[in-house]
Amino acid sequence: MARRGRLSGRKDRSAGESFAQPPWRQVKSPYMPVEAVSADELESIHDASLRVLEEIGIDFLLEEARDILKEAGADVSKNSHRVRIDRGLIEQSLKTVRSSFTLHARNSDHNLHMGDNYCAFCTVASAPNASDMDGGRRPGNQQDFQNFVRMGQSLNIIHLFGGYPVEPTDLHASTRHLDCLYDFATLSDKAFHAYSLGAERILDGIEIARIARGVSHDQLDQEPSLFTVINSNSPLKLDEPMLKGIIEMSKRNQVVVLTPFTLAGAMAPVTIAGALTQQNAEALAGLVMTQVVNAGAPFIYGGFTSNVDMKSGAPAFGTPEYMRAALVSGQLARRYGVPFRSSNVNAANSVDAQAAYESVFSLWGALMGHCNMLMHGAGWMEGGLHASFEKMVIDADLLQMAAEFMQPFPVNEEAFGLEAMKEVGPGGHFFGTDHTQSRYQSAFYSPMISDWRNFESWEEAGRPDAYQKANIIYKQMLAEYTPPPIEQAIKDELDTFIAKRKEEGGAPTDF
Amino acid sequence: MARRGRLSGRKDRSAGESFAQPPWRQVKSPYMPVEAVSADELESIHDASLRVLEEIGIDFLLEEARDILKEAGADVSKNSHRVRIDRGLIEQSLKTVRSSFTLHARNSDHNLHMGDNYCAFCTVASAPNASDMDGGRRPGNQQDFQNFVRMGQSLNIIHLFGGYPVEPTDLHASTRHLDCLYDFATLSDKAFHAYSLGAERILDGIEIARIARGVSHDQLDQEPSLFTVINSNSPLKLDEPMLKGIIEMSKRNQVVVLTPFTLAGAMAPVTIAGALTQQNAEALAGLVMTQVVNAGAPFIYGGFTSNVDMKSGAPAFGTPEYMRAALVSGQLARRYGVPFRSSNVNAANSVDAQAAYESVFSLWGALMGHCNMLMHGAGWMEGGLHASFEKMVIDADLLQMAAEFMQPFPVNEEAFGLEAMKEVGPGGHFFGTDHTQSRYQSAFYSPMISDWRNFESWEEAGRPDAYQKANIIYKQMLAEYTPPPIEQAIKDELDTFIAKRKEEGGAPTDF
Repeated sequence: MARRGRLSGRKDRSAGESFAQPPWRQVKSPYMPVEAVSADELESIHDASLRVLEEIGIDFLLEEARDILKEAGADVSKNSHRVRIDRGLIEQSLKTVRSSFTLHARNSDHNLHMGDNYCAFCTVASAPNASDMDGGRRPGNQQDFQNFVRMGQSLNIIHLFGGYPVEPTDLHASTRHLDCLYDFATLSDKAFHAYSLGAERILDGIEIARIARGVSHDQLDQEPSLFTVINSNSPLKLDEPMLKGIIEMSKRNQVVVLTPFTLAGAMAPVTIAGALTQQNAEALAGLVMTQVVNAGAPFIYGGFTSNVDMKSGAPAFGTPEYMRAALVSGQLARRYGVPFRSSNVNAANSVDAQAAYESVFSLWGALMGHCNMLMHGAGWMEGGLHASFEKMVIDADLLQMAAEFMQPFPVNEEAFGLEAMKEVGPGGHFFGTDHTQSRYQSAFYSPMISDWRNFESWEEAGRPDAYQKANIIYKQMLAEYTPPPIEQAIKDELDTFIAKRKEEGGAPTDF
Repeated sequence: MARRGRLSGRKDRSAGESFAQPPWRQVKSPYMPVEAVSADELESIHDASLRVLEEIGIDFLLEEARDILKEAGADVSKNSHRVRIDRGLIEQSLKTVRSSFTLHARNSDHNLHMGDNYCAFCTVASAPNASDMDGGRRPGNQQDFQNFVRMGQSLNIIHLFGGYPVEPTDLHASTRHLDCLYDFATLSDKAFHAYSLGAERILDGIEIARIARGVSHDQLDQEPSLFTVINSNSPLKLDEPMLKGIIEMSKRNQVVVLTPFTLAGAMAPVTIAGALTQQNAEALAGLVMTQVVNAGAPFIYGGFTSNVDMKSGAPAFGTPEYMRAALVSGQLARRYGVPFRSSNVNAANSVDAQAAYESVFSLWGALMGHCNMLMHGAGWMEGGLHASFEKMVIDADLLQMAAEFMQPFPVNEEAFGLEAMKEVGPGGHFFGTDHTQSRYQSAFYSPMISDWRNFESWEEAGRPDAYQKANIIYKQMLAEYTPPPIEQAIKDELDTFIAKRKEEGGAPTDF
């Protein structure tokens, strides 16, 4: 897929029904990050969160975690789960955590640089329901799961998978992770995620990532190849399955994305500054946990602070509060020198104007805040309660536009086009000039969804809206999906591993 | 309308059908502007545009303008309309132009600071068609025009009128401006715009603005109270009606917004840098024109550079190219120390996801580029070919969100909420705390359109999308419109002036 503006080797399609995409590349921001608080204010948020860790503390529900933290010098309560972490331990952990690293994929062309000005876009993750125009909203199932994975593989703008796009509830919980991780490793060749629902699933995920890459255990321990998102149980709590996930992942040098679920007014203070203080305390607690397990283990700072609808308590996304929190979260992550994770989210029930504007506001906050990993990049709807096939295509278009917006452009003598202006002169038209003709095919981003036909042509075509266009494109995309090549030996090893683990009964379901 | 989150003195409405808005205030950005080119690249664009003005020149079609420019030292061709302007004259004009000024409205509470970090939002302007869900798309008429003006008056987030929201084609062209300007001055008390379609309309506009404000000619000459947008005939041409507009407006110290219509690949080079070079040359030519007429006359640098669909030639808006051009336009305006105008635009035919995402991308470029005047802030659709009542409400919501995003927020000990965190403790909920209860009514922006109900409630309510919700709200807004108070003497003077000018036959229609 090297040529811009068209899927290579595929036929052109009739107007309004074709899709086209730029080639794979990771996005790098040329812009200075936008800052929402001053340096002094940032320090005061940092300091307040250290006081939370020192004075209030965090409940770590797993004894093993408390033991490790005690060994590292934390103040561990004898009679409760409470752990208080002083600033000395925080500073020590900040010295060992890495500012950037490579996340390895099965296809090394899809390896990702995590950190600096780079950003990687994930699919939607963890939705309990799936939706499309034809079938409506339904509980997640394996077929929908696999189709989302196929689309994530086909879309060059999707860099990795951020969890199950939709939860395949028709698969038994004890072996679901084996089926899903196998699909990630075979239907796709991009990096993926395993859920921290206890140690077994994480260990299976690490092994599947290792086999898929065809590398030794030692090499895997040197090369982050899997990531997990830990949503702390805000406020101020980390449960057993999560802590087991952090411990197993960090031991093996795999990536922990610690994302407190701090909805202001519900699980966090109603103020932006308060919710961020709590988010920061929880994120730092997780950061310390990774570093005391394995100094230098890869860690990503997740910011998910948003607000709730104070009338109903419903979570809201893509709000002004969300945008400001994303910018400050980026500032905090940069202060600590760790990569920053944000999200492309909205709370709309239908793929309408609201879904689009909340998404672009989310992107605005995330990308101007220099996020390095964008979770839920494509397909998220309804505050995460459903994954939409049509929204995935629309979001892919939004991400492609954002990527193009972050692409440097030539500012030089040829680009200024003074000769073309002389040739055209006042009142003329540039289309026929050599300056235009030699550039027009690649001059501008060519969208998948946006309908720029005149009103009359659009009316004749049946007045398709963005949702309808996306419906056509997603089905074309699935029809044209081809699985990425995989070595037979690797495929066999994966099959054998999955069969063995299924025979063993998978993983406990009492997490 | 002082209380936040609700129209004062009006009843609450049932969920999904109410509208609420924050009080009037002008928006001030707390963010550093985002820069898309380096300082050296900016200088190179500046320099290239000076070469355009020196080597190619601009056609000024009005003899009076050429005479003024010649007198000021420009190189005016004897045998053509061509005028070449050297950098000395540019530098001299940049010394006299103002970096900021107040634009006065009939109601002085609605005066606007133009410049610095402030931004003012205009309604949609100049659409030939109007549209709503009930009546569909139709040629502009007076009733629709007046309804858009009423909505612009009712919406606190609309700061001024940027031209006729829709062209009332049922009014005779010779007196249309008298009816429209009279409506601006009586149905609203916010600042407004007059079209530069020759001298007469501009002089009528200035006089109507003066009478409406109840000030003397001398005072008006000290206080900018009207603005006009000049879209140069790109490439490199200014026609007679525009130049008459610039001359009459500048003479009287009124505001000229010079906005080259530089669509890359059509009326400007296909490259972003080339289109910006041409935009800059045309804008500087207009700037010089204002300053040689009246040193110190208020001037706003308009950036409208976008691209076209290279398959059809159709203009595209809210694209990555548009966003980058907006950021660089802001950099150029700041380099010259003049206010910057941008726009909230899209090319969608229906009020769908495309309309929303192209709009928010436009806002992203405009507001991160520190635009001081946002044209087409609310209601623009279809590349400007129709004004939509529903889109106006959705855009008002977007603008309100953007305004909230640009509002500083408290970062201090009370906001951090450590006491609330202690009270709640791990695993608790913040809703019941004093910290939340004392703040929750004003803690978050409360949207007009966004539907945050859960899927089941939303389904029961008939699955309303953003377009349907906006349809209900705009009709409520019109039903509740009350004209702003006006002194009887001023009303009488306006009536008399309009009657006299109509008796005189209005203005020529052969512009």
